[in-house]
Order: sequence, then C-alpha cells, then structure tokens
Amino acid sequence: MTGSASTPSPTVGGLQSPVIPRDAHNPWYQRPAEPLEGDALLQVDAWWRAANYLSVGQIYLLDNPLLEQPLSRDDVKPRLLGHWGTTPGLNFVYAHLNRMIRQRSLPTLYIAGPGHGGPGMVANAWLDGTYSEIYSKIDQSTDGMRALFRQFSFPGGIPSHAAPETPGSINEGGELGYSLSHAYGAAFDNPNLLVAAVIGDGEAETGPLATAWHSNKFIDPMQDGVVLPILHLNGYKIANPSVLARIPEDDLLALMRGYGHNPHIVSGGFDGEDPLLVHARMAETLDTVLNEIAAIKQDAADGTLEGTPRWPMIILRTPKGWTCPVEIDGLPVENTWRAHQVPLASARDTEAHTRLLESWMKKYKPEELFDSAGRPTPFVTGLAPEGYLRMSATPYSNGGLLRRELRMPDFREYGVDVTAPGHETAEATKVLGGWLADVIRLNPDNFRIFGPDETASNRLQEVYTATDKQWNAEILPVDLNLARAGRVMEMLSEHQCQGWLEGYLLTGRHGLFNCYEAFIHIVDSMFNQHAKWLQVARSIPWRRSVSSLNYLLSSHVWRQDHNGFSHQDPGFIDHVVNKKADVVRVYLPVDANTLLSTYDHCLRSVDYINVVVAGKQPGPQWLSMPEAVAHCTRGLGIWDWAGTERPSDEPDIVLACAGDIPTIETLAAASLLRKHLPELRVRVVNVIDLMRLQDETEHPHGLSNRDFDTIFTTDKPIVFAYHGYPWLIHRLTYRRAANANLHVRGFIENGTTTTPFDMLMLNNLDRYHLVIDAIDRVPGLGSKAAALRQEMQDARMRARQYTREHGEDIPEVAQWLWSGEDGVGFDRQNYSARDEVGADQTGGDNT
Amino acid sequence: MTGSASTPSPTVGGLQSPVIPRDAHNPWYQRPAEPLEGDALLQVDAWWRAANYLSVGQIYLLDNPLLEQPLSRDDVKPRLLGHWGTTPGLNFVYAHLNRMIRQRSLPTLYIAGPGHGGPGMVANAWLDGTYSEIYSKIDQSTDGMRALFRQFSFPGGIPSHAAPETPGSINEGGELGYSLSHAYGAAFDNPNLLVAAVIGDGEAETGPLATAWHSNKFIDPMQDGVVLPILHLNGYKIANPSVLARIPEDDLLALMRGYGHNPHIVSGGFDGEDPLLVHARMAETLDTVLNEIAAIKQDAADGTLEGTPRWPMIILRTPKGWTCPVEIDGLPVENTWRAHQVPLASARDTEAHTRLLESWMKKYKPEELFDSAGRPTPFVTGLAPEGYLRMSATPYSNGGLLRRELRMPDFREYGVDVTAPGHETAEATKVLGGWLADVIRLNPDNFRIFGPDETASNRLQEVYTATDKQWNAEILPVDLNLARAGRVMEMLSEHQCQGWLEGYLLTGRHGLFNCYEAFIHIVDSMFNQHAKWLQVARSIPWRRSVSSLNYLLSSHVWRQDHNGFSHQDPGFIDHVVNKKADVVRVYLPVDANTLLSTYDHCLRSVDYINVVVAGKQPGPQWLSMPEAVAHCTRGLGIWDWAGTERPSDEPDIVLACAGDIPTIETLAAASLLRKHLPELRVRVVNVIDLMRLQDETEHPHGLSNRDFDTIFTTDKPIVFAYHGYPWLIHRLTYRRAANANLHVRGFIENGTTTTPFDMLMLNNLDRYHLVIDAIDRVPGLGSKAAALRQEMQDARMRARQYTREHGEDIPEVAQWLWSGEDGVGFDRQNYSARDEVGADQTGGDNT
Repeated sequence: MTGSASTPSPTVGGLQSPVIPRDAHNPWYQRPAEPLEGDALLQVDAWWRAANYLSVGQIYLLDNPLLEQPLSRDDVKPRLLGHWGTTPGLNFVYAHLNRMIRQRSLPTLYIAGPGHGGPGMVANAWLDGTYSEIYSKIDQSTDGMRALFRQFSFPGGIPSHAAPETPGSINEGGELGYSLSHAYGAAFDNPNLLVAAVIGDGEAETGPLATAWHSNKFIDPMQDGVVLPILHLNGYKIANPSVLARIPEDDLLALMRGYGHNPHIVSGGFDGEDPLLVHARMAETLDTVLNEIAAIKQDAADGTLEGTPRWPMIILRTPKGWTCPVEIDGLPVENTWRAHQVPLASARDTEAHTRLLESWMKKYKPEELFDSAGRPTPFVTGLAPEGYLRMSATPYSNGGLLRRELRMPDFREYGVDVTAPGHETAEATKVLGGWLADVIRLNPDNFRIFGPDETASNRLQEVYTATDKQWNAEILPVDLNLARAGRVMEMLSEHQCQGWLEGYLLTGRHGLFNCYEAFIHIVDSMFNQHAKWLQVARSIPWRRSVSSLNYLLSSHVWRQDHNGFSHQDPGFIDHVVNKKADVVRVYLPVDANTLLSTYDHCLRSVDYINVVVAGKQPGPQWLSMPEAVAHCTRGLGIWDWAGTERPSDEPDIVLACAGDIPTIETLAAASLLRKHLPELRVRVVNVIDLMRLQDETEHPHGLSNRDFDTIFTTDKPIVFAYHGYPWLIHRLTYRRAANANLHVRGFIENGTTTTPFDMLMLNNLDRYHLVIDAIDRVPGLGSKAAALRQEMQDARMRARQYTREHGEDIPEVAQWLWSGEDGVGFDRQNYSARDEVGADQTGGDNT
Repeated sequence: MTGSASTPSPTVGGLQSPVIPRDAHNPWYQRPAEPLEGDALLQVDAWWRAANYLSVGQIYLLDNPLLEQPLSRDDVKPRLLGHWGTTPGLNFVYAHLNRMIRQRSLPTLYIAGPGHGGPGMVANAWLDGTYSEIYSKIDQSTDGMRALFRQFSFPGGIPSHAAPETPGSINEGGELGYSLSHAYGAAFDNPNLLVAAVIGDGEAETGPLATAWHSNKFIDPMQDGVVLPILHLNGYKIANPSVLARIPEDDLLALMRGYGHNPHIVSGGFDGEDPLLVHARMAETLDTVLNEIAAIKQDAADGTLEGTPRWPMIILRTPKGWTCPVEIDGLPVENTWRAHQVPLASARDTEAHTRLLESWMKKYKPEELFDSAGRPTPFVTGLAPEGYLRMSATPYSNGGLLRRELRMPDFREYGVDVTAPGHETAEATKVLGGWLADVIRLNPDNFRIFGPDETASNRLQEVYTATDKQWNAEILPVDLNLARAGRVMEMLSEHQCQGWLEGYLLTGRHGLFNCYEAFIHIVDSMFNQHAKWLQVARSIPWRRSVSSLNYLLSSHVWRQDHNGFSHQDPGFIDHVVNKKADVVRVYLPVDANTLLSTYDHCLRSVDYINVVVAGKQPGPQWLSMPEAVAHCTRGLGIWDWAGTERPSDEPDIVLACAGDIPTIETLAAASLLRKHLPELRVRVVNVIDLMRLQDETEHPHGLSNRDFDTIFTTDKPIVFAYHGYPWLIHRLTYRRAANANLHVRGFIENGTTTTPFDMLMLNNLDRYHLVIDAIDRVPGLGSKAAALRQEMQDARMRARQYTREHGEDIPEVAQWLWSGEDGVGFDRQNYSARDEVGADQTGGDNT
C-alpha cells in the first residue's frame, strides 16, 4: 500500500530487531548528477504537496479530510493549535531526501530542528506508510486521515512538535538548540549513516546550536557517519526576523566556512516563484553535496585525506509558511512572522475565512494526491524509500532496536582490597577509570565517554591506556592522547557533551558524561527534556528501551574549597528529583568499591537517568568488594562495625550519612563518641541510593516503611550528614515516622575561600559539630557529655585558627585515621586539595 | 604613590558617586598611529613584567615577596592553587589598554573572560593603586605585597578567579561562557564606553559564548558603547588543545568575518621570541583598531553609516603560560596545557624546584620594578591612567555608583477597575505592558526589556507604543517595531538575554527578562552565578547596590496544555529557593493589579533576584487597586469575601492558593462548597509572596509563627493549591505547626496532550478535586458531603469526556463565573488557549 509495498516491510511496531549489515554495501559513492525533470520532478512536488496538505489538515480540520464536501465551520477545530511556519520547509527537505535515498540506498536519519514542526514530520510518516504500521487506526484511508487530523494537538492526541510519539524522531521540537548536537551523537560510530539535520534559523540563535557547528572537528571520516546540516532560513522567529537571515550573504557564507563547512545555497519560492524551479535547484545541490561527501569518504578510505575534511552543508532559503495565503485581511502573511503559528486563526470566524482555508488546501490539488478512499496515490508513495530506508522507519530513530548489550568486565576484579574498614586509601574515580578502560576495550564501537575537558581532572585518566580523545582538528607532536578516532569526547561545552550523548544513546549505544557537579546545572534544561522524553517513550509500545544516561559528577561541592563559591553547588540532585520517579536515580557511593558496583549497575540499566556523585580525591576505603556489592544492592544499611550499639538493643542515636565526605565526617564523629562517650549507643547508617529514602509508593526504589523504621527507628534522634542541600532529605523522608526526629546537616550557600575542613565547619557538617549535634539531641547525657561538647567547640576554634594561619587543615584532621575497635586506620594526609595539581601536572583543575 | 598621584584620585572605597560627564569630550577620534618604541615600549613591558611577577607571587609565595633572601621552601605556600596559564595574556592586554587609555582618555571596562585569571586582575589593580585604596592593608609596600600574595586562594582570603572582591570586575571567572554577553550588556546605553572583552579559547567553545558574537547586530553606534572582543588563543584548555586554536587561520578569520567583525591578528612570544617585538605589534594593532572604531562612530554621528558596521576585533595568539619555565623535569610546560594551572606544583618538594621557581620570578627583574620598600617604581606606575580612568577603578565596574533611580509612573493609575471580586476580565501581563510603556517613556536611557523573541507572546506588546526592538542587522519594510535603537532586546537565546541583562544591571542600569517558565531553566546556572555574585557583593563595603534582576515568567506551566509536556516545568522556583534567602524573592501575583503592585516593588528593589510568575491569558480580576496593594504588602492574607467562616469563629478547613490558576480553581472550589455545604466554614488564603511561608529566621520576608498560625491555624486541615511542584510548600512551611495538616496539590510530571482543565484534572488541582480533598479532610461531614463527593467525581468524568470529544473544555468550566454572595461574576470564556494566536496573528506562541 505504500512505496515499500514491493518488499516485505518489517514493521517497526512489531518490534523485530532488524539486522543492520554494517558493511553490506558502501552507500558513499559518486554518481553523475542528473537534472531533476519530467515525472521525477513532478513526483517530488507531489510528495511535497501531499505532505503540505496533510500538515494543514492536522492544524485545522476535525472532519471532511478530503474536502469532499464544501468546508464548513464545523469541520474546523475549535482550538487551532500548531505551527505552520516551518512546516513546508521540513516537508520540502523530506521529499528531496526521499529521492536521494531511493537513488543511493543510503540509511538516513532526519533530525527536525525547527520548533514545532510536528505536523510535517507526522505527515511524511503517514505518507511513507510507517505511521499506519505503528498506529493501525491511523491507516491510509479517509477514516485514517480524519483520525490523523483530529489527533493533532488534541486532548489525548499527539503534541504539536516532533516527540517520542513521532516515528523517525530522536529530537524534541519543543525546547530549541540541540538538533545539531543530537545529529552528531547519532553519527558517531555509524559509518554508513547520513544524518540530515535541519536547523531552524530561530534555533540557530541559541548558544548550544551556535557551538554545535564545531562538532565537525570531532568526526572521524572512517569510523563515523556523516552529518549534513541544512540551515533552513525562512527569515522569522515568533515575532522577529532571525539573525542569520538578515546578515549579508557574504557573512553567512564566511560564517559557515569559518565553522569548517563548504556551504551551498539553495534559495527560492519568493514572490510566487514556481516551486518546480526550486525543486530542480535543491535536487542538483543535494546531488552535488552527496558526491562531495562520497569524495571525502573515499579519500579517507584510501588514506589520502589530509587534515580536517571540509564537509558540505546546505543553506536553504524559502519563505516562512511557504504556500499559505499571501495576504489575510490585507496583511502580508506568507514570508512574514505572521505565518509562524496558525496563519488563519480566524478560520471558523467568518464564512470568508473558512473559504480561504478551503482554497488554501485545494491549492495542493488533493484530488491528484489521494484516491477517493483517502489513500495516497502510487505516484506519490512511489517516492518513499523501501522498508527501513524510510526515514520514519529507520531503526536509528528507535535506538533500542539496534542496541547491543555492553560486554562488561567483572567490576569485582578492579576493586580495592579492603581487609578492614578504613585500612586503604584510594581515589574512587581513578579506580573506576581502570574498569572503564576495559569497558572500552571490550566495546570498541558502541561506548563513549563525554566530558567538558575534565576527564583527566576527574581522574579517569586510565581510560587513555585503552583509547584516545577523538580530535579531527590539527594535532601537534606535543599533544597527548589525541587521535582521529577515540572513545573520549571532550569539548568545553556541557551542552555539547549532553547533546552528543543523548544522540548517541537514542541511536542505541552506551555512554557516560563526567562533569563538575556545580556546572552540570548548565544542562538542567536539557536534562529536563531528556527525562520527559524517556518518560513518554516508556509508554509507547513500539519504542524499545535505550541505555540510561549516566552522569558521573566528580569534583563535587566538598572539593571546591579552593575553587571557591562559584564552584559550589550540589543542587543538580534537587533538580533531578523533581522529575518522574520512574526515570531518575541518584547514587552517592562512598568509596572505590561502591562506585564500581554502582556504575556497573548504571551501565547495564535502561531508560533511566542515573546521577552518580563520587569523589576523585584519595580517601578511605570502607567496604570490601562483597560488602560493597551487598551494600549497593540494599542501597542503604547499618554499618554496625562503625557504631556502638549492642545487638538486640535500640540505639540512643542514629548517625546517618550520604556522600563520601559526609561519611568520613560521620565516621570521625562516631569514633569521637566511641572514645569519649562509650556508653552512648550509636548507630551508623550509610545511604548510597538516595531514592531508597522515599516512600515505596513514590519511587520504585523506595524502602517499605517497615524496613525504613527498622533501620532509622521511629523515635530516636537522627543526625543526618548529607552531601547536598539539607532539606532534600526532609523531602525524601517526608512520609516517614523518623522525619520528625531528623536533623540534617548539608551544604548551605556561604561563600568564602577556605580549606576543605574549614568548608565543612562553615556548614556545621564537620565531625566536631556532628558530635555536638548528637549531644544536643540525646536527652540526659550529663556532665561528661557537656565537657565533650565544650571540647568539640574548642577543637573547632583551634581548627579554624590553624587554617587561617597555615593555609591548610590542622594535622589532627588532615592526618586523622579511622580506628575501629582493632585500632586500625588509614592515613588521610591527602585530604587537602593540594594533590589536585598532580605530579604530572596534567590532572589540572577546572577551567 | 601611583601613576595617578598627580590628580586627586577619588577613592572607590570611599563610595563617592562620581559624576561621569556623558558629553564631556568625544573619546572616539582618529589619531595617527605611532610605533611603540623607546621608553614607551619599555614601560609597557615593565608593567607587564611587574604584573606577571605579582601573579606568580600570589600563586606561590607566603613570604619573602621581593625575594630579598634566597627563596626557601617555607616561603612557598603549602597548598599551591590558582591558574597561571591565562594570566600573562590577561596582563599583556591590560598593559596595552593602559597605554591606549592614557593616550585617548577613553573610559574602558576590562572583562576578563578566561577562567581563573584572578591573580592577573588583582596584580594589575594593585599596580594602578586601586587595590590599596580599597583594601588599605594591601598597600604598595613590602608588607602589602606579602599580604597580597598570602591572601590569594588562602583561607579567609580571595578566590582564584575574578570575583566581586576584584576591583574592576563585573564578570566571574568561575563558570565560563558569559564574558561577551556581559560586555555587550555593559555597552548598551554607554555611548562613550569601550568594553574590552578578553575571551579565552576554552570559553569560546561554550554555547553561550559562541552565540554571543552575534550581539554586534544589537549595538547602535550612536546610543551604545563599543565592545572590542579580544579572542585570546593560548592554545589549550585544562588538558586539551582548544578548537579555535587548531583550525586553519583562514577558517578562523572567516568565522570572525562571518560573525560580522573585522579581525586583526597579533601573534607572538613563541619559541622564545622577544616580548618587546610582540608589544610593538600589539600596540600598532590596538591603534589601528581604535581608529577603525572612531571612524565608525564618526560615520554614525555624521549620518553616513550604511548597514551594520563591521566592528573590529583582535585575535591574540600567545603561548599558554607565557614566560613560565619552558621545561620542567624534562617535560615541555610553557605553551602546553601543563601550564594551565600551577606549572611548578613541586616548588616545595625539592631544592631544585624551589630554585627553579626563584629563577622564574627573578626573570622578571623585580629589582627594576619595585623599590626597596616594595613600591612599584614611577616608571612602572607611569603607565596607569588617572583616577577613574584606571580600569580597576572604573565606576562602570561598580554600577551602583552610577545607578540612577528609575522614574516610576504611579502603577495605581494603570490598574483594572475592580468593583467587586471577579467582575472584570483582563490579561495581567498586557496591563503590565501599559505601565512598562510609561516606565520606558520616563527612563529613555537606563531601562531595557530582554526576552527570547517572546515579549509580544508574553503580551507586553503595549511597550511598542513607546519604543522599538533594537536591531542593527537588515530591516525590511514588512518589519514591525524594529529600529536601530530601542528598549526591547530580543534574540532567541535565553543565555544572551540573561547575560546582557546582568551586564546592564552590574553597570548601574535597570531591566527585566521575560521568558517562558519552562525554558528559564536554560539559564539555571547563570542564575546560580549571579545569585552568588550578589550574595558576596553584599558583604563588600565598596560595592554599591545594583538593581535587582527581575524575571517575568509568563506562559507558565498551566498554560502549556497545548504546547505539551516539553513546555511544562515550574521547577525554576525550586531552583531559586536553594540560593541564600537574602538574595531571592518569588512572587505569584493573581491578577493585573497584584502584578502591577508586585512589579513596581521589584523595579524599585536592589540586590535581589525577583522571580515573578504571572498569567498572560484573560482571567478574573480579584482585587481593587487598594486591596491589591494591601495584599501585596502583606504578601499573603485571608480573602474573607471568598470564604464562609463567620467572624470570631475558627474555620473547619483552610483552602490556600498561590498562583493565578490555582487561585481560580480554589475560588471555584470555595464557591462549590458554599453552594453545596453552606454549613462548612471555609477560609480562603491567598499567597503572593512565597517567601512569607518561610520561617522568619530563614528568610527576611518570613512571617512570624504567631501571624502564620493565626492565618493558617495550627490544627485545621489545609488544602493548598500551588502553582508548582507541591513539595516546595512543605519545604517552606517545614517549621510551621500547620505543616502536619497541609495537603498540597500542584504540578506533577505527567505528560499528555490536553485542554487546560484536563491538565488541571491530571494533576488533581481542578476545582472538583479540591472539593473532594476538602471533604476527605474534614471529619464527620455526613451523607450530604458524601453525595457531593460523588457528584464531584461525576463532574470530573464528564469534563474529561467532553474534552476528548470536542477538543476544548466543557462549558460549565470554560464559562464558569465566580459568584460571591451578591451573585456577580465574570465570563471566563477565554479560558481556553485559543485566543493565544491573537487576532493580529502576531502574539504567537512559542518557538
């Protein structure tokens, strides 16, 4: 029933995993350009008209989809929603890519960057048959077309922009700016994939998009696919002209050359120019561009490529809202911002306006495009590629179909040998780096690490024993670990890291994003959109699971004493917790072994966003590998070796902790209490999986109240030392009996230059204050406790004074050793940040 | 004691407000370039060497500042922190700008974009005398120099990057990407100001910076100052080369031309090139550039300027860490990423390394630069401009000195005439627009409105009766409200809006940023940094107060039913509340009059970040202007006209609300209860100022417990209908007795296409569910309540079904009228989003 009818079209809805033969054929070849003319030209135009007709229909019509009756007011939707302005351009590109794909059998992923282009993307998917295969009620019939129109931006229907519901899409058309980063993420490690990224001229003004052009310096012509940016200048945003449409053409061309591209301009459709002429120019340009790409690919294969290839790109200038009424009520509409949204908002208001809508739609000549049963004619559907080559059906847009499980080295073999708590010192992320190096070795083509120039600073440098940083600009002899191809992607743009990774994951691969904790807020909004995407995708049967998006936030708030206030912000966790519990997970491993266990879990998981905050500094190792695995599996638990309660007794107080630094301080406080108030029964609880604190009805990881009460008690005071803003703990435990007894210490906005321990003191999260907190909360402790309280206050004063004088922490803190009953301990001499600058001077700090 | 000693230098520390004569002289003039040679050349070099010496001293030395004794291990700081890499470049530019300023008496603001350039900025401020004027203990003496060195990145001292503590700075060097936006913000409406913006090549990779280059299309050569971007390519970031340093020079030049600039390259210092040669080239280029600028300014003044001027910019290529040891321990350091942070981290570790540090510092020949008392020699300080022309002393960097109070039209005269609650219908932001138009008329040169192409969509279009959108790219006849100069700044980049506004405010002006609520998260991290800046600035005596940063978040979460899930996110408020209470305020006005009163307050305030969330749709007007003023002054209060409690009685239940839509639903619920359960004593409480909910010890706006308990009661059930994520209300009221009785309804992540009322139902925030909530929470209501409960459930079912069928809200909701005891009401026929597309088709919706 479509252009792909001749071959059995494996249904996307059926969820069969297609086999994509990576080397089946080389789709990159030069072919003589032939002018688009005759029936071939008319066919492209017919597709475009059909897509435009279907787009207008979605925005306006409730009924009478084929206009078989004169259009009446009641056929028009009462709420007119959607955006026409960008749609004809999106449809134009779609039609031309179809022609190209049919010629070259080139797997192509279409990224619709411009905002709210939903009607166009849906129209094309319906025309090529994919939509009906997935959504059987929206079949290629008059009824199907009616349902197609009705559901658009309608209660219980589909959104007005490309979204998870849209076949062929991996890029939301809601928040703008990420299309090009997504496109590059999709292209990495897909050497035979073309990613056609249509970029709106509004979107092009955003920061993330403006830097994403430089992604072309990170593409390896051998190993990666090709991104073809198509900058669609229709001149206007919501209410303003766009910048790139109003600069001199020389500047525009210079800008694109400056970005490293070879720009080609296609311009047309203005002042009533016949679209057929524009089709011919676009086809010629697309042929030229594909041949240019093929030449680069060939040179790369031949080893004759020198320097960074100058990839082509297309600048497409067409009128905003092209083909809509030129004027409405005496005001120019086509080719103005007035065509941005619903150009004829009054379509129900007067008979004349209803007639205008009808004549607009009839201009596309629906009778030539659809038969009387509402099916697109074979002439139209003949332009569609076959099967999975249809852009709406490409498995690259439903990455779970292509996703291969990671081959995972056994993380247990990479751990730190911990014979007793606090014996050994290790840098958690550095240990993780050793394991990640082997993850990379075992998965050379579907796992990448992304970071804004911080992978070494975050101590993952051992990955460079297995791979390099991919870099396709100039490489000098002095450079280390740079190569044309590599698994580590570093650019000083958190937006790019996030966008690349999202594109990589949504096309079926695996990865992680390592970043400073404070600056991950730069992508708060991208996180929002990805979380919303995952949430919606879970409810769409044909969308297969994709790998989780994994953050590794090292260089966290408690290690930013020296970088100062601007680098101190643990609020990303709070931001994350606002999203639907189904899709977010937050982990705070306390040492190398718990970090390994946590990350093994994260890399295996699907459809989540996992936030892992972990230390990069040398620190005490608390748990052996079996203990770490058990503790991570539980997510939280009592560390009985650290407390002083006797079996079968209830404790007098619970010292709880979450985060590596709070855990150290809590254990130090516990050991002070053990020494000075041995009769006080102290329970130490450590929390790795923050979501365990929530009620089981609120989060799938939530602990049952019974288990929670057993661990935290229902009536004993709890002093909780937490990594981030303290009130989040209250929020998570809101429904717990223990909440009323909870006293949380965490980060509060202060802002001064300090040493590490001084920073803890500023936040009352230091060991001495935790002891004071405990004393203040257990009633009837007597004079011994009062004396200890005073001693703790003196100790704080002493410690503060020392830092002011010497510029570093007081030795009793800096060299503090954990000692349990057996008196063993570890040397925390590296507590200070000094070692950050590293012996090899490469593990530098931030930006 | 400094180069400015000849004139009485008004101290910045003394806080006198300088008179900046706007037309005192024209500093833009062409002057014949003269080669830099002889003493003039040596003087620039001496300054540079002195600044470099002082920078190294800050990073490394505790004592022995003049190296009078052989450098010993104990002279070196135990924790070596800071970033050398960018510093010599920053110092180089500073020295050359000094020379230029002395020649031209051109007020110049220096923006240090590269990360962590703190030591350089501080060194220059100390050399030109400003630092000692502000911080009297850090005087120009050996003791002062010792203190200068010691305090750097030292407990109780100063941060490692330019910060509020740094004289001359308005741009944090912590989080990167905003320098150029800040620079343009500073230049708007300062026609005689040069803003020299040094941009690091790391920073240049960020998205915000990449789009900020296009700011030059928004500068009016007549009314605005000049931004001179100096792209400093030192080749490396933390651990990687930078993109712009590794693309072909032709591409780099094309990129800058594409951005609309005329680029000039200065390159030097490589392979041991004599710095004097580089100085000569830089001076010549700077002279050329200033003459080019003068020519543009002259053409603009003469009216002979055509099109957008091609402003010059400088590309400065020098080695990373220029002048530090070329090699350390056999590894190349200068001109590599190894010079990024502390190039000689081992300076205390071995005698040889200590000696290496000493010889590095002695290379600058301190004995030529400082006298035996530690004062910079007159030859050095002779390069400093005089008084306020010193870049560290410029009042443009301490905007409060220049700030003029806004002239404020009386907002009471712009209100809606409300004779009884719910009588009138108005669009709150549209009414605000009328008042803002007059704010603009009264303040033609120090107030601007910023927005990402949404000012009309957010219904502020009446401002266009008073001004235009500033646009210096091509203007076509079809364009509306575009002009070379105007008070409205629109670019589709939230980063630019925020960065421009920050720069504008920090240089002493006023403004607001209007944005869609969901997408304001794009600037979460910029908000963080500005909040931290304000917080620190409050504690610095010489920093004068600046105007608050005002957000207007219209198109909020409850009006995004049609745009869908991607546009629904009220979490910015949560993000904001994490910051120090001193600097953040959140307001949720419920109608036009409360919005006017709130915004009047915001525009008058200083040193805050005010977040105002307000509706743009037609809605009921609840309060007369006197009532609105009183209500806004209290921040929250009982609406006795809406409830059914009798004086002197306690209510049975409190219905509380915050936000325009929750208020409508709460009043609708109250009226349902009044009708069906008239014996139930209902109290209605409305909250405008969210911070009033907090404890008075936690926020300056916090209500006393006594007042809070009087309003909310301590023991009655409270059903709280809230605009955002529900748990924020719990957080804010955490310490209140009422918290235990609080039942909050708000936004929960759902995600489907709906109508407005359906969206409320999805979140259980609709009137019917609020009635159910009330019934469920008051004990012993009996069978009448049970019947009402069932009726409410039926009503919800009916409403949902209607939306699915008709695509719009059920008439009983869409046309609902508030009726108090007098039976009056308003027509909410415009409740649906349909009117958004507007009759003139310009008030379009989002992107």
